[in-house]
Amino acid sequence: MPLVRISLLAGKPDSHKRKIADAVHRALVETISIPVQDRFQIITEHAQPDLIYDPNYLNISRTGDVVIIQITLSAGRTLELRKSLFRRAADLLHQEVGLRKENVFINLVEVAKENWSFGNGEAQYAQ
Amino acid sequence: MPLVRISLLAGKPDSHKRKIADAVHRALVETISIPVQDRFQIITEHAQPDLIYDPNYLNISRTGDVVIIQITLSAGRTLELRKSLFRRAADLLHQEVGLRKENVFINLVEVAKENWSFGNGEAQYAQ
Amino acid sequence: MPLVRISLLAGKPDSHKRKIADAVHRALVETISIPVQDRFQIITEHAQPDLIYDPNYLNISRTGDVVIIQITLSAGRTLELRKSLFRRAADLLHQEVGLRKENVFINLVEVAKENWSFGNGEAQYAQ
Repeated sequence: MPLVRISLLAGKPDSHKRKIADAVHRALVETISIPVQDRFQIITEHAQPDLIYDPNYLNISRTGDVVIIQITLSAGRTLELRKSLFRRAADLLHQEVGLRKENVFINLVEVAKENWSFGNGEAQYAQ
Repeated sequence: MPLVRISLLAGKPDSHKRKIADAVHRALVETISIPVQDRFQIITEHAQPDLIYDPNYLNISRTGDVVIIQITLSAGRTLELRKSLFRRAADLLHQEVGLRKENVFINLVEVAKENWSFGNGEAQYAQ
Repeated sequence: MPLVRISLLAGKPDSHKRKIADAVHRALVETISIPVQDRFQIITEHAQPDLIYDPNYLNISRTGDVVIIQITLSAGRTLELRKSLFRRAADLLHQEVGLRKENVFINLVEVAKENWSFGNGEAQYAQ
């Protein structure tokens, strides 16, 4: 159910991108109880001029390894859970992919739980 | 007003993509009364490693023909209308494009009706 | 904090795209008090068949120069502020980039202010 968009600068090998996607998904599973199989992710690579990030906003130092992760998910997770998701995603991206935690940008877009159809034209989470 | 993002694996002909976009738009028109001319869609193709979908989540069998459709639209449609949108989109994608309904993934992102500017710097739907 | 996605037809020089991104960011800074450094933007170019826009919806005449701007931002701006953002973005895109205001399509997606992590696994805007 989360639909995850992962954006990064072009030029990384597929294995690197896969590890990023794996780490983000594992964080979702471990912190907000997303089922392991509930995995839908879109990775996009961008040329330098097309991925614009501030290298220092909030005194966080970002480099060309920055990863912008936008996660659309059902509403209702507590603030504590959302914080734990951010924390775990950054930890795993550091441990498993070698990213600096400063380079992990995450945004959550919350939607109603009935706003998903996983196939067959049904709203599987309605009710 | 709906802004529709359609993501699929690379390699389909333009005619296939167009039919998908047509079917999704027709479903919006027929079920939730979107004006025919209110059509704004962005199609993106992705290499295999960059479009990750579970092939079996919720016992729905997905293949490389999977289409992930994210629709940003104004809030306020009833659950019944949203369900009919899902149903009609899957039906039309099956009938008109030949997709298996299992391969139709849809997510709705609802926003306030005043959160759109269709041009000229005005919020045309704000009152 | 706003995460800005800018979509346009392929074939424009980088300088054109940069000016668009600059104008959108400046509008955010000037109207809704986004910090200058709070800048995260993703620009995507699309082939003709993949960027579908109605050339006349609401009697607004759109051409191949159309720019579709989707801005995810924290909720809470008044309608007046959001209107001023639309107005200023269209004005600046006209003045600084030479776009016709009819070609400026903007959509806002509002999220909770705690739904952002700018790095380090923290929710910097929570609290």
